[in-house]
Amino acid sequence: MSAGTEGLLAGGVHGPGHLRALTATVLDTLETAARARGGPLPAGGPEAVARRTRALCGPVLPEEGVGAEAALTDLVRAVAEGAADPADPACVAHLHCPPLAVAVAAELAGAALNPSMDSWDQAPAAGVIEELTTAALARLIHPAALAPDALITSGGTESNCVALLLARERAAAGPHDGPLRVVTGANAHHSVHRAAWMLGLPAPATVPCHDGRIDPAALDRTLAGLGGGPVLVVATAGTTDEGRIDPLPEIARIVGRYGAELHVDAAYGGPLLFSERLAPRLAGLEHAVSVTFDLHKLGWQPVAAGVLAVADTALLAPLSLRTDYLNADDDTEAGLPDLLGRSIRTTRRPDALKIAATFRALGRRGLSELVEHCVSTAEEFGRAVDARPALRRRPGEIGISTVLFRPVVADALEPEAGDAVVAEVRRALLMDGRAVLGRAVAEDGDGRHRLWLKATLLHPVAASADLLPLLDLVTETAERAAAEEGRGGDGSGRGGGGGGDTGAPVTERLSP
Amino acid sequence: MSAGTEGLLAGGVHGPGHLRALTATVLDTLETAARARGGPLPAGGPEAVARRTRALCGPVLPEEGVGAEAALTDLVRAVAEGAADPADPACVAHLHCPPLAVAVAAELAGAALNPSMDSWDQAPAAGVIEELTTAALARLIHPAALAPDALITSGGTESNCVALLLARERAAAGPHDGPLRVVTGANAHHSVHRAAWMLGLPAPATVPCHDGRIDPAALDRTLAGLGGGPVLVVATAGTTDEGRIDPLPEIARIVGRYGAELHVDAAYGGPLLFSERLAPRLAGLEHAVSVTFDLHKLGWQPVAAGVLAVADTALLAPLSLRTDYLNADDDTEAGLPDLLGRSIRTTRRPDALKIAATFRALGRRGLSELVEHCVSTAEEFGRAVDARPALRRRPGEIGISTVLFRPVVADALEPEAGDAVVAEVRRALLMDGRAVLGRAVAEDGDGRHRLWLKATLLHPVAASADLLPLLDLVTETAERAAAEEGRGGDGSGRGGGGGGDTGAPVTERLSP
Repeated sequence: MSAGTEGLLAGGVHGPGHLRALTATVLDTLETAARARGGPLPAGGPEAVARRTRALCGPVLPEEGVGAEAALTDLVRAVAEGAADPADPACVAHLHCPPLAVAVAAELAGAALNPSMDSWDQAPAAGVIEELTTAALARLIHPAALAPDALITSGGTESNCVALLLARERAAAGPHDGPLRVVTGANAHHSVHRAAWMLGLPAPATVPCHDGRIDPAALDRTLAGLGGGPVLVVATAGTTDEGRIDPLPEIARIVGRYGAELHVDAAYGGPLLFSERLAPRLAGLEHAVSVTFDLHKLGWQPVAAGVLAVADTALLAPLSLRTDYLNADDDTEAGLPDLLGRSIRTTRRPDALKIAATFRALGRRGLSELVEHCVSTAEEFGRAVDARPALRRRPGEIGISTVLFRPVVADALEPEAGDAVVAEVRRALLMDGRAVLGRAVAEDGDGRHRLWLKATLLHPVAASADLLPLLDLVTETAERAAAEEGRGGDGSGRGGGGGGDTGAPVTERLSP
Repeated sequence: MSAGTEGLLAGGVHGPGHLRALTATVLDTLETAARARGGPLPAGGPEAVARRTRALCGPVLPEEGVGAEAALTDLVRAVAEGAADPADPACVAHLHCPPLAVAVAAELAGAALNPSMDSWDQAPAAGVIEELTTAALARLIHPAALAPDALITSGGTESNCVALLLARERAAAGPHDGPLRVVTGANAHHSVHRAAWMLGLPAPATVPCHDGRIDPAALDRTLAGLGGGPVLVVATAGTTDEGRIDPLPEIARIVGRYGAELHVDAAYGGPLLFSERLAPRLAGLEHAVSVTFDLHKLGWQPVAAGVLAVADTALLAPLSLRTDYLNADDDTEAGLPDLLGRSIRTTRRPDALKIAATFRALGRRGLSELVEHCVSTAEEFGRAVDARPALRRRPGEIGISTVLFRPVVADALEPEAGDAVVAEVRRALLMDGRAVLGRAVAEDGDGRHRLWLKATLLHPVAASADLLPLLDLVTETAERAAAEEGRGGDGSGRGGGGGGDTGAPVTERLSP
């Protein structure tokens, strides 16, 4: 091995030694960069971030390399100074969680060893760890089933896609004529529609919602209108926009009456099952033939940590596949485990490792405490919104840990101008690097749909007091944006004042 | 923040401090475990590995957690003692590479910050790094194109699926009647067939191969037989079984004559482009409308590091998608970059970060040296096989860095018994933890298909001298297996003597 390549590899007996120096550089750089950023995301907006990132990272593929230390210092500085860090309590836009240190440390081991989950001879022990982990998840999700099973996926989108694929294949093998019809709520994640498109299925029939949840009477009418044929109803347990859980017991009854099947997208809500107190919110989930579950949301895993659970392992048969180089018949007969039919991917990361490390570290009870923390923080945050005259919460219950609210100054304007103020508040806070809030169109108390600011509270440690400064920021920024909107804004009624190339901060940055 | 949750998170200003302790545990455990394993994979076969892994890791989801340090110690010990480690020169079964330390260290930063690549407000700088990285890859793969582009995928399987999806949508929008027909070689990866199945396309037409490569005359006949309609021809640059590169210039000419389109699966061979000396082997690639490229093979990245390159960015239009919470029109108009149409996934890892760190660290020239090292090591290894009377190499050229060979004792037996000896040699070495060799059915000099041992040489540092002990192991083990086969074996003609539950080593373990 030549001197120039000494220290090159992460694996083997010497890899950990090489990694000690490089991970020290990474951690030091992450620490310095987090202080330099000084907030939940970088200030200046997309143009400024792009400029700084390009200056640090370009050219990405030079003719001559700069060496591992220098490359890591520049790249990690760029990505960290320019991060929207969900570990900051003011980073609450999306189902984008701050990962647990134990999970991140486990990822390091997985990356260094690089097992690939498609054959035993690439992942002897990692395959067993995946089996143990998916068995635990399967039992959590379908506790009364005789032979439940679960797959590790790249996320909710892949889980929903595989659920529809399995249903398509069952439909093709069944007694009915015609392709599978998918029926879902107007509140469903876009990935349900995208999966139907990818799989060559008819576009899903969409059932109207009331208060962000599927209206059971409307579902009944939709199913009656389809008049037979194989149907998969996709309900949601934790909508992306509002955290709403569809009325699963009623939906399951209706689905059963029509001889249809039920898939539940519980990518967000699924981890409520860890909590004895909150699990009853998912009553009815046990009737689902398949369940999308996701641990890179309310499970604090670094991406990817998706799960698809099925009520019976036989439901996975359409994924089985033989290919001589990975699972030849004689190898399987001789006792080599066949891992290939566990995914639509081939080469596949050991994502179960970080999940298993987290489960073992925290236990069911520890995970329950973190889930309950997020739910109760959201309730406190909602009460804090209610206590502020300048803000108004979307009427009704809080969905899991998602709080929708808007500044009352927006209500005083014409509907379109009011929504533009809401959008502008969000963008102004993003541009200034002060807060990462989300947005959602949702039904108001008067039945009209309005744009709301969305706080998706996934921080497992931050107290509601850590979140209150967000409300001050929104109030101040909204007053300014409404005044600007009142003066005519940019004329489009869309409030583009925070546009990426203006560079002018609308609010002042609090932390230096 | 309560005392019990102190140190929980990986991000923010304090995360790196929490990670220092935990990554030290991980690296110490990896080092100890690699020494304890003492070879390329654990001894004892699947049952023994499962027993040891279950003892260390179970129960995966206890009621009470054991804490991060204890969980990591057990889980990392289990996965590392039970790893098939590609950093060991005797681990050569698959396109399963030993990852570079620089890439693994970069993964740590990505996991700690957890950017998600589906919106700017989850990945302000990571999105820019991905843009720089995909631009560099696009220019490498389609250097003469005006607006080439590339996507990051989870691997070759997803890349091939997206390539077929884009072709399906072009076909649907085009003037022809009927669905897209996919035409591919008998040597193509199974993911091409699987993608057609997933996407609801007719099963691909399969073109016969000669010497592991598509026979151009046969392709011509197949295309003539289809009689019009939209067609995508999928060629391979680096087959999984043999490393063969299809005759791309001739294929491109035939494809052009029929008005069809060409996709090239260069998951294995693509990185030859880094080398000025080896890039000419991929001549013709420039005619492909899309190219599968993969950096977790000849690019030494931990999984996932897939790429799909397209000749023109407009070809990606079918993936574009609007959803209010990620890329509302008014946000895009106000300058927030829209990242959603860059994948079929939604939440998505910053896999570009480790690729960019590797590119910057090594440069084009450094990557070229590593690729050339693998190719020349394979040639030396092939010569070493040729020099041994007890072994026989598959006639013909070596495909990239894949060497097929078999013990001559297998040739003296009936064809099925001979193949059983080859399979048994591989399994015996796996069971004893001494070597991880692959297997492939491939055409012999007499035109018959036989089973071969496969060495896929992706180690960027190991010299051919490091690999020679493999040949001794194979020779010894083959003699024993042939003698056993001669005595009747297990009666099935399949040589199941290394079966998982026998536990009896067929060969002795060299390293303690």
